[in-house]
Amino acid sequence: MKLSQIGELFLLEEIRKNFKKKSKHVVVGIGDDAAVVRPHDKYLLITTDMIIEGVHFDSNFITPYQLGFKVVSVNISDIYAMGGKPFYLLLNIAMNKNTAKKFIDRLFDGIKDAIRLYDTTLIGGDLSASNVGTSLSATVIGYGEKYIKRSGASRGDKIYVTGNLGDSACGLALLKKIKRPVFLEKPPLPPFNKGGQGGITKSKLQPLNSKLSELGLSWKTVEPLLRRHLMPEARNPKKFIKNATSMIDISDGLLIDLSRLCNESKVGARVYINNIPQSPELKKAASFLGISPIKLALSGGEDYELLFTAPPQKKVKAIYIGEITESDRVIVDSSGKEKPFSAEGYQHFINTK
Amino acid sequence: MKLSQIGELFLLEEIRKNFKKKSKHVVVGIGDDAAVVRPHDKYLLITTDMIIEGVHFDSNFITPYQLGFKVVSVNISDIYAMGGKPFYLLLNIAMNKNTAKKFIDRLFDGIKDAIRLYDTTLIGGDLSASNVGTSLSATVIGYGEKYIKRSGASRGDKIYVTGNLGDSACGLALLKKIKRPVFLEKPPLPPFNKGGQGGITKSKLQPLNSKLSELGLSWKTVEPLLRRHLMPEARNPKKFIKNATSMIDISDGLLIDLSRLCNESKVGARVYINNIPQSPELKKAASFLGISPIKLALSGGEDYELLFTAPPQKKVKAIYIGEITESDRVIVDSSGKEKPFSAEGYQHFINTK
Repeated sequence: MKLSQIGELFLLEEIRKNFKKKSKHVVVGIGDDAAVVRPHDKYLLITTDMIIEGVHFDSNFITPYQLGFKVVSVNISDIYAMGGKPFYLLLNIAMNKNTAKKFIDRLFDGIKDAIRLYDTTLIGGDLSASNVGTSLSATVIGYGEKYIKRSGASRGDKIYVTGNLGDSACGLALLKKIKRPVFLEKPPLPPFNKGGQGGITKSKLQPLNSKLSELGLSWKTVEPLLRRHLMPEARNPKKFIKNATSMIDISDGLLIDLSRLCNESKVGARVYINNIPQSPELKKAASFLGISPIKLALSGGEDYELLFTAPPQKKVKAIYIGEITESDRVIVDSSGKEKPFSAEGYQHFINTK
Repeated sequence: MKLSQIGELFLLEEIRKNFKKKSKHVVVGIGDDAAVVRPHDKYLLITTDMIIEGVHFDSNFITPYQLGFKVVSVNISDIYAMGGKPFYLLLNIAMNKNTAKKFIDRLFDGIKDAIRLYDTTLIGGDLSASNVGTSLSATVIGYGEKYIKRSGASRGDKIYVTGNLGDSACGLALLKKIKRPVFLEKPPLPPFNKGGQGGITKSKLQPLNSKLSELGLSWKTVEPLLRRHLMPEARNPKKFIKNATSMIDISDGLLIDLSRLCNESKVGARVYINNIPQSPELKKAASFLGISPIKLALSGGEDYELLFTAPPQKKVKAIYIGEITESDRVIVDSSGKEKPFSAEGYQHFINTK
């Protein structure tokens, strides 16, 4: 069945039923002109982000479930990056009217699982036809007793990240070789290719083994890399809020996001290449792909790990990668040599890579 | 100059400079991972809406200034429709990288004028490339001591609207005849057709007189109709908040939006055709176009007038169009005959008109 056979109103009704949730803070949820919530805590945090077909994703490479999961995660990540707790989600979805109903069902499955994971509530949004591809945007509202800006870093602060870098970019490089969606969700979804766009044909569901052995890689190696790209989980900053002086999430690549943090804080940074956390899977897959793993880790982007600073005397349970300096921005290589770095990473509208 | 020559970061910097505004409630504005505001008042209202090229607008018919103004207005209208006062705006903008810089400048001029009109603050958003057309989405956050749902209407309540209906739909019909952008903003902008998409060529700026005399219409007649479509002003509900029992803004057409209100309130409605407010300009232009003005007023859509109900004993300074009944939904024509109505209006994904 296609969207054109269902219509906006039916779809809206389904969403209302699907995302019904009682919360003492939500006064009016989906379905009115605006959502109404009761403010609480000291600060209200608000963020919004888009995911656009052909720019942020290729529908030949991502399943609708993963797409739904991802649009929630990347927005939650921004609230986390401010030290907040996410509470509410609004979703704008523009889709071609020939989109298959099953595509939408899976999309909402992914959204629902992400909402559950982050313990948030869908309170509104907008549905629209689109003459071209699918585009999604989400707004997330969170609260915090405290907030952590990008601008709070001081000279001497240590720089930390919350996990391995480069996995997501390597996952994307793998997908470009594999050239089809990879099911990470469980159970794997039945194929569907009837009744509209966005179908997953049976052939796309064949096991990847032959493709992987062609590449000389095992499922065990590629799975975490693909997962980090297709279904990134945002990192909760709870443990770091007390000590962090500045924070940002790594969406465009470590170096560009660290540059942003430095710009806002008016400081420099020294990063030790030996300290950049890289998964064994990244090292293995990158070498098979003929890409430098450290390049992916430094400027691959879409890591959705947190990058933050804390005073040197504080004990922080995260990965120490360098320190804040007065003004120079350098990477120290394994031989101890310093090399200046600039804001390498993805920039919309300009082809920087 | 094109977007591809400027890049996302420069553009972001410009937006930050352009929309800088001190507010005691905004703790962190544009430029961090999320905006931070101080909650106040009893209820927090949140809404989000999209405007997509080829679906909601045709860039041959609307100037970038008008587009910017409109995306703010339609979102503000939703906050007003809940009885709230808008405070904060977040904007998502996806544009082709070949978009002319001047297009963006004008777009922001329109956004800025709308923000000033509604006394709100831009606190965040997202910029992205788009492989196709321009798509905009906005999120507006407002506050209220009280909120007015769609579901509060009771039998016997009177039904009101805040202004003339059908003007916007008639304006759109006129644009389809005029087939080019019409400058309503002052001063009219200089033509630009160099350096990218979205240019307004000099020929498009020629006076409309010849086209209008062809249609047999004067500028005085068409101007308010075009303005209502291209630069709708949202209606502030301040005067009605005390007495309104239910409220919605008319975006998809009186009958579909009244049906929504009836569905939510589990009531019927009787609407008097003779009471439907129609401007003299609508009557004049519609007859020249060969369209029924009452059809435009009942189901044209994009009116952005408020539709609300209030108890019959309350004095309300708005246009009385009918009353809430137990369950039947009827229109009473000029001869006093009742005819049932259903939810006629625009529905995404389905071609209803």
